[in-house]
Amino acid sequence: MDLSQYKETTTPPDELAAADEVYGALADSVRRLAVAQLLTTVDFDEARAVAAELDALTSRLQASAKAGSLGVELTAGLDVRNHGNAVIGLRNPFAAALGEHRIVWSDTGAGASVHLNGLYEGPPGHVHGGVLALLLDQLFGEAAAATGVPGMTARLTLNYRRPTPLGDATMMAWLDHREGIKTTIKGHFKDAEGNITVEADGLFITPRWARAGQDAWPSAHPSTFE
Amino acid sequence: MDLSQYKETTTPPDELAAADEVYGALADSVRRLAVAQLLTTVDFDEARAVAAELDALTSRLQASAKAGSLGVELTAGLDVRNHGNAVIGLRNPFAAALGEHRIVWSDTGAGASVHLNGLYEGPPGHVHGGVLALLLDQLFGEAAAATGVPGMTARLTLNYRRPTPLGDATMMAWLDHREGIKTTIKGHFKDAEGNITVEADGLFITPRWARAGQDAWPSAHPSTFE
Repeated sequence: MDLSQYKETTTPPDELAAADEVYGALADSVRRLAVAQLLTTVDFDEARAVAAELDALTSRLQASAKAGSLGVELTAGLDVRNHGNAVIGLRNPFAAALGEHRIVWSDTGAGASVHLNGLYEGPPGHVHGGVLALLLDQLFGEAAAATGVPGMTARLTLNYRRPTPLGDATMMAWLDHREGIKTTIKGHFKDAEGNITVEADGLFITPRWARAGQDAWPSAHPSTFE
Repeated sequence: MDLSQYKETTTPPDELAAADEVYGALADSVRRLAVAQLLTTVDFDEARAVAAELDALTSRLQASAKAGSLGVELTAGLDVRNHGNAVIGLRNPFAAALGEHRIVWSDTGAGASVHLNGLYEGPPGHVHGGVLALLLDQLFGEAAAATGVPGMTARLTLNYRRPTPLGDATMMAWLDHREGIKTTIKGHFKDAEGNITVEADGLFITPRWARAGQDAWPSAHPSTFE
């Protein structure tokens, strides 16, 4: 993984913003649809009719499309556009837990408020343990970057203390230790009542391209480096 | 978490099968739509028009719907219907990595073939590290159940050896050790070339309700107990 894998975009900022608004709204429509589809109890004929209409809309979207995955673009201002990211991607409909929120960076780490709807279920009424791992992995990578240098996850350990109910929750991560190319991050997940449900720690390794110097390192939310 | 949280269903098997076909197909339509939406480059007017039609279909699906989450149903035959599960749920559009495959159980553990499309991206062209954790968490829980008793995840440690390219991959998990209520599972993730990309181990605790005896324990894919 090095910066050469990041596509540079020369599209002017206002055009990028306009595209983000339109395609972001389209992703939001799919997010709402996904929840409705999970929970619907319409009769079979109606379910089949809606599926047929969805397939037609899919064809319309496929009329002009990229192949494979979105990848990550870097703007001239070194903004990172990781719109396909599975946790925070603007255009990824699976990336729904953060909603309008962003992962917030500080000098000491990173944190976020999340809302976990029925799409994140594992045990009845509770968040899938693996979803908590998914979210914390992204958060920890951002905490490593927020406190100095980006890191690739080398090890992540999750200690599950109690089940996490679906609904609102928060997660926090902070720098525990940094020595050479190794960064240790710790953090936790809390349910809406404030109970810690998962404690975690992670080891992150500074990628080679970031070791020589950090001048080339984008300053704003380079959050692909989970 | 105990069996009382599982709703019993008295719907006859053939009616359940018919519902699974219709609603499963609807979920598949949303899965295809999600990829198309991620990658589309249609112009703004078309994107807005498709979003408006999606919103209308969402309203149709909401005309009759459950609230919150699907939960888990148990049939009279003790089949587990966890259709909302974030990794393996028949009706969960986010649960797309397994495709037509199922997690396969054996006497020694569990394994699965997966296909990871652009919706699972983290670093450019590669699977999000947290997605690998999500998938392995589900697999490990099933491996614990397949080899004797269900377990709630108490600890999961992931060691990332190299980036996992998007595309086809496999994952395996096996019983390492069992003593009293503690079960240790080990496993790994392999890319399409057969390289091990993640090694993991997990500690699972047998829930109280399953300790007295396993007679009440469903034998077929009780895979909610990740």
